[in-house]
Amino acid sequence: MTAETHRQRLQRVREQLAEKRLHAFIVFNRASIRYLTGFTGSAGVLVIGRDSEALLVTDGRYQLQAKEQTKGTGVKVTITRRYHRSVAEWLKRQRWRQVGFESRYCTVAFLEAMREHLKGTAVRLVGVNEVVEPLRAIKEVWEVERIREAAKMADTAFEHALKVLREGMTEKELAWEIEAFLRTHGAEAMAFPPIVVAGERSALPHGQPSDRPIRKGDLVTFDLGAVVNGYCSDLTRTIVVGRPTAEQRRIYRAVWEAQRRGMEALRSGVKARQVHRIVRDALKAHGLERFFTHGTGHGVGLEVHEMPAIGQHSRDVLQAGMVVTMEPGVYLPKVGGVRIEDLLWLTEKGAELLSHALNPPKLLSV
Amino acid sequence: MTAETHRQRLQRVREQLAEKRLHAFIVFNRASIRYLTGFTGSAGVLVIGRDSEALLVTDGRYQLQAKEQTKGTGVKVTITRRYHRSVAEWLKRQRWRQVGFESRYCTVAFLEAMREHLKGTAVRLVGVNEVVEPLRAIKEVWEVERIREAAKMADTAFEHALKVLREGMTEKELAWEIEAFLRTHGAEAMAFPPIVVAGERSALPHGQPSDRPIRKGDLVTFDLGAVVNGYCSDLTRTIVVGRPTAEQRRIYRAVWEAQRRGMEALRSGVKARQVHRIVRDALKAHGLERFFTHGTGHGVGLEVHEMPAIGQHSRDVLQAGMVVTMEPGVYLPKVGGVRIEDLLWLTEKGAELLSHALNPPKLLSV
Repeated sequence: MTAETHRQRLQRVREQLAEKRLHAFIVFNRASIRYLTGFTGSAGVLVIGRDSEALLVTDGRYQLQAKEQTKGTGVKVTITRRYHRSVAEWLKRQRWRQVGFESRYCTVAFLEAMREHLKGTAVRLVGVNEVVEPLRAIKEVWEVERIREAAKMADTAFEHALKVLREGMTEKELAWEIEAFLRTHGAEAMAFPPIVVAGERSALPHGQPSDRPIRKGDLVTFDLGAVVNGYCSDLTRTIVVGRPTAEQRRIYRAVWEAQRRGMEALRSGVKARQVHRIVRDALKAHGLERFFTHGTGHGVGLEVHEMPAIGQHSRDVLQAGMVVTMEPGVYLPKVGGVRIEDLLWLTEKGAELLSHALNPPKLLSV
Repeated sequence: MTAETHRQRLQRVREQLAEKRLHAFIVFNRASIRYLTGFTGSAGVLVIGRDSEALLVTDGRYQLQAKEQTKGTGVKVTITRRYHRSVAEWLKRQRWRQVGFESRYCTVAFLEAMREHLKGTAVRLVGVNEVVEPLRAIKEVWEVERIREAAKMADTAFEHALKVLREGMTEKELAWEIEAFLRTHGAEAMAFPPIVVAGERSALPHGQPSDRPIRKGDLVTFDLGAVVNGYCSDLTRTIVVGRPTAEQRRIYRAVWEAQRRGMEALRSGVKARQVHRIVRDALKAHGLERFFTHGTGHGVGLEVHEMPAIGQHSRDVLQAGMVVTMEPGVYLPKVGGVRIEDLLWLTEKGAELLSHALNPPKLLSV
């Protein structure tokens, strides 16, 4: 990744400013700031002018880092404790009038403080969203390679968990095994705290690992992701300890089938909610659709949840270059749940699997 | 901590609503929602009515958890995917008119969505801040005990780091040693990613651990904190590898002295910025004040940075019951830095140290 990449990305934002008749755009989302400038600090606001100007406002903690990371991008860096004042004063100086800002990420207090500084000027601040997110959704090939690396690391960590799993270990102990493995094998961070839920707790789609020990007969769901070079992965597998019951096998088979159907439906141009419907219908054939209580998938990149959304209410259209999860799940309250999640790269021809951890058509028994 | 605690805290918010002539108040800050209701989920909005009503809006992931955690508090739980609509509809139904909200934590998009739902009604939404933060700043005794436990864990982790430290280890390896120790000795999370910076990198007040190896002659700064039962700690120590130079000893001594002066100045009723001035003046006596580039301290509790701020621009007044850090530092660019940070509980009589890791008046050589 070079400064040239960032200059091109900034240019693509500027093309949208022209279309939207904005003189400038203010970015608050951290991942979007990183995407556009290379800056990885935890605090900052980016202003992009419609011609060639761009200003990154951050504080003293990031003085050296901000200058180094944005070198060659054409982005000017201002160090301040009062972000809103620096942004407002720059807007005034440029004599811009129509200025968009990310209203999903800007707080009301920040907006009010900027407006206070801009009183009596011609600057008008307008909430505008989905400017950077759609750009981020379409990955460049080198970005896919980074995600592939993060996916591989998640695969290996899952295999490690299977190796160390013993009856009597707690969910928390297994989750820590996964985290420690990832952190000592090259992941710079977890994409999210690993989920390990067993037995009746596997019926909680977002359950947090507890002190419950793993016992014979349990369904155990692992949901984990690594961050490598800024890019995330996301992987879910469900296994059974000992011999699976007929019901466990039946649910697993249904989820596996639904996931396959979803994967087959992935192609450039298809509506995301259409893919969700196909997955849901596959579960319906087994009478299980009402136990599928979340979306089918989401984009993955600098953030572990980003555009597109694959779900009932999504208005997104899938396109070549997107990297998405496919993760149907069935959750039977007090009994247990199964979720299977893979990561896929949409190409013009279909979709390529980026995750490769064991995912057999039959429930894996350990 | 019982439901009674939460009922009392909600009551104290209601007393402020009466003073501010508000019919209700909307809380967005996660730590404040936890403080007021016990709910620990990652997403939620809390509405507190001036009489006895309170509503927690969260989503399907937290259905069971939200109900269990808020049992007995008088808080009603609504599960939805559209937070803003649920909040707005409840406000309408209660026929409230003047409604405050935390404008520092509410996004512009969320406010606009609520206003859209409230069009044509008499409900008026007003940005109001520092309603819950000042309550959180004054700790109950059982809260101090939890912070004390988190502080003890940070002490032990620092001692562990000293034990395993060897020349040639990298900053990242040492930081991981600290994190792994904490996570396997009872901490539920890091208060923040541990900082280990050595040699010239110790001159970065918020440097991230790198692959730089620890070498003889290095100043090494450790900054770490644990989360135990929801409460944070925060500890910083600087040591030297091998024999310190005269300059290293001089800087350390100055920071140590400044910290002592600051601690002696801590008492109920004193202005926070006055304490900062005392610490700064102590460094000035050594000609080092211009290398002290950050604030003197901050409150610690459910968040690792909360009220009060101890710095130049603070308007906070210190009060018995507050738990604060005292953390002067001196950073000589390209040479190195020293920061010493302890955690203190303000009482009517003065301040009690909650951190006990080795902090000798002379620079510790390992």
